[in-house]
Amino acid sequence: MSAPVAIWGVGTSRFARQPDVPPTHLAWQAVTEALADAGIAPSSVDAVFAGTVFGDPGVTTRTLQHLGITRVPIVTVENACASGTTAFHEAQVAVGQGRYEVVLAFGIETMTAVFDGPIEPLASDPEGAQGFAMPSLYGMAAHRYQHCHGVSPSQMARVAVKNRRHALANPRAQHAGELTVEEVLGSRPISDPLTLLQCCDISDAAAAAVIGPARGSAPAGGTPDVTIRATALASGQAWDHNSDLVWGWQLVADTARAAFDSAGIGPQDIDVLEVHDAFTIGEIVTTEALGLCELGGGGALVESGRTSLGGAQPVNPSGGLLARGHPLGATGLGQVAEITWQLRGTAGGRQVDGARIGVVETMGGGTAGIDGNACVVAVLEAPEGRQ
Amino acid sequence: MSAPVAIWGVGTSRFARQPDVPPTHLAWQAVTEALADAGIAPSSVDAVFAGTVFGDPGVTTRTLQHLGITRVPIVTVENACASGTTAFHEAQVAVGQGRYEVVLAFGIETMTAVFDGPIEPLASDPEGAQGFAMPSLYGMAAHRYQHCHGVSPSQMARVAVKNRRHALANPRAQHAGELTVEEVLGSRPISDPLTLLQCCDISDAAAAAVIGPARGSAPAGGTPDVTIRATALASGQAWDHNSDLVWGWQLVADTARAAFDSAGIGPQDIDVLEVHDAFTIGEIVTTEALGLCELGGGGALVESGRTSLGGAQPVNPSGGLLARGHPLGATGLGQVAEITWQLRGTAGGRQVDGARIGVVETMGGGTAGIDGNACVVAVLEAPEGRQ
Repeated sequence: MSAPVAIWGVGTSRFARQPDVPPTHLAWQAVTEALADAGIAPSSVDAVFAGTVFGDPGVTTRTLQHLGITRVPIVTVENACASGTTAFHEAQVAVGQGRYEVVLAFGIETMTAVFDGPIEPLASDPEGAQGFAMPSLYGMAAHRYQHCHGVSPSQMARVAVKNRRHALANPRAQHAGELTVEEVLGSRPISDPLTLLQCCDISDAAAAAVIGPARGSAPAGGTPDVTIRATALASGQAWDHNSDLVWGWQLVADTARAAFDSAGIGPQDIDVLEVHDAFTIGEIVTTEALGLCELGGGGALVESGRTSLGGAQPVNPSGGLLARGHPLGATGLGQVAEITWQLRGTAGGRQVDGARIGVVETMGGGTAGIDGNACVVAVLEAPEGRQ
Repeated sequence: MSAPVAIWGVGTSRFARQPDVPPTHLAWQAVTEALADAGIAPSSVDAVFAGTVFGDPGVTTRTLQHLGITRVPIVTVENACASGTTAFHEAQVAVGQGRYEVVLAFGIETMTAVFDGPIEPLASDPEGAQGFAMPSLYGMAAHRYQHCHGVSPSQMARVAVKNRRHALANPRAQHAGELTVEEVLGSRPISDPLTLLQCCDISDAAAAAVIGPARGSAPAGGTPDVTIRATALASGQAWDHNSDLVWGWQLVADTARAAFDSAGIGPQDIDVLEVHDAFTIGEIVTTEALGLCELGGGGALVESGRTSLGGAQPVNPSGGLLARGHPLGATGLGQVAEITWQLRGTAGGRQVDGARIGVVETMGGGTAGIDGNACVVAVLEAPEGRQ
C-alpha cells in the first residue's frame, strides 16, 4: 500500500518554436516556477526523473545542475511522446514507496533545433525504414477508422476547431485561434485524410512538477496540493493489423483501466482531461479508449460539445498537443500542469467549473506491428476543501 | 529496509563494430542468454529498465517487444556512459522495494550506425559548443593530473597494456592483444597526452541482467544467484577548475562511499572490479576515488601489478571499456555480467580465484563546470556456499 502522494507545484515555459532560447532558459522557467509553486528551494529536491526524446545526452542533467540541483540522483527517461508522463509516473511511485521525499519530475524538448530541415523517419523503426513518419501512421489509422466506424472528416476536424479555440484562453499555447471546420479541412493535405491543421506542430518547451507526500493543507502563502490518486504505465503488445481497433486503442484502454481501478473511479467520474491529440484522429480514438463513449462513438462525442469547454467532460482545455503544442518530452508534464491548475481552480479563462477529478493520458510511439511504445494514464484529484 | 535482491541471470552480445547486425539481433543475443541463465521465460518479466544513449527513440522498447516482452512497463533511461548501470540501479531498487518481482535491466547501443563519419561534439554541451569532445576533456584531465600528481605517460599506458592483455581471455571482447608500453605511447596522438591505444573505441552491443528477490539456492539445473549488496547513483556538482581533483574524482568517491557504506564494506574487501576506463587516465583516477590507493597513487598502483589478473585486486578482467569495448548504453550491464561470472567462478581464463566481493563503477559524462553527469557504483557478492 502506497502512501498518499501529491503534486506540490507545477511550472512550464511558453510552448512555441523558440530555437533561440537555450534549453537552460526553458528549464529555468519551468523549474523555478514549479519550485516556487511548491514553496521549496532547489536543495530540497531529493531526486529527479526527467523526460526528453530527442534531447542531446545529458541535456536534462546539465540544465538541472545549472539550476542548483546537484549530486542527487537524476534519471532521464525516454518513452517517446509519453516520456514526460513516464517521468511523472516514476516520481509518483518513488514518493509513494518512500524511496525519496521530494522528487522533481521534469520534461524538456527543443525540437526546432533538432528538426531544422525535412524530418526523416527513424530508420531503426520498422515503418520508418519503409518511409513512414508519424503523420502517415495516423493517416492510415484515420482511414481504417473511417472504414470501420464511419467517423467523418468533419468530425475529425472538430477536434482541431475545439482545441484551437480552447487555447485562446491559454497565454502559453503555441497555436490558438478561431477556425471553422471548412478551414481545417481546406488546409494543406499532410497525409490523407489528415490536413495540416489536424497535425500538431513541433515545439520547444520545458515543464515540471514537484511531487511529495500529501501535506493535507496548503503551506503558508503557498498553493494547495493536488492529490495523485493513481498513475499507470504500460508498453504495447503485438497488434492484429486486421483488427477494427487501430494501434493505440487497446493500449490506452488497458492502461486507463489499470489507473481507474487503482484510483477507484470510472470514466463517468472525470471532470476534465488532457489527452494525446497529436493528430485529430488521436483524440477521437483516445476518448473512446478512456471510456468517455463507446467504440466508434468518438466522432459523435466531439460533435456533441460534451468535450468542449462548457460541456460535461472537457477534453484538452489547454489546447492539447494540437494547439498548446507538442514538445515531446515536455508534453506530459505540460498536461499535468494544466490539470493541476484546473483542479485548483486557477486555470483562468479556460477553467472547468468545479473540476474535482482530472485525468492525464499520453500515448507514446506506435508502429504497425505493436499497438504503441508506451502509455501513461494519471488520475488527479482537487485539493481538499475545494468546491 | 529493502529485501535482499539478486542477479538471477546475465547475458551479452559480442562487443564489436558490427553495423550490419540490427539492434533486434543484439538484443536477442543478450536477453535470451540472460533469461535462460535466470531460468525464466519472457512472460515472467514484470518490468524493464533499459539504457541507451544515442539509440533512436523507442529502439529499446521495440526490440524488447519483438522478443515477447510486451504490455509490462518499459522505462528507458539515459545517464550518458552510466545509462546501463542506471537501468541496473533502478531495477535493483524496484525489486528491493517490492514494486516488481522480476525486472530485466537491459542496455543497447549501436554506435557505428550513428557515428558513421567524424564525431561532432554536442553543441548543447558547454564544452562541446567550444569544440571539445570527450578525448579533449580526458586529455586535459591527464595533463592536470601529471602536473599535480606526477602520474607518468608510461603509467597511463600500463592501463591499456593490462586491459588489452586481460581481454585475450574474453572471447566477446573488441580489442584484445599483447602490447608494450612503447607501442601504446607510440600510437597515433589523439589528444595529448592520450594516444590512440589509450582511448576506447566505439562499439555495437547489448547486455542484460535479470533481477529478482534472492532465491537462496540455485534453481534446478540453473545458475546460482549473485547477491546485490548495494547500488548507489548520484549526479555531479559544481567543480572548482583550480582543484587538484580532475572532474569525476569527487563524484566517484562520493558515490562509492554511499554504496560501500550501504553494503558494509571497505575498498580493502573488494576482490575484483569493473570500472570506467574510457581512457587510461580514467582508470587511474577511478581506482583512487574508489579507495584502492591514495590520491595520486593510481599510476603506481597499476604499475605494481596489484590491479592485473593475478594481483590482489584485479581491475577490468574483461578488458574494460578500452578492450572489451564501450557501447555506451550496454557498457554498464556488460560490467555487471562480467562481475556476475567472476563471482560465480565461471569467467574462464580470466577468472579471479575465489572472488567473493565484486564492484561495478560507471562514470557518465562530464564537463569542465560540473564534476560529472552521473555515477553508479554497485557492490555484488558471490553466491552462498561458493568458495
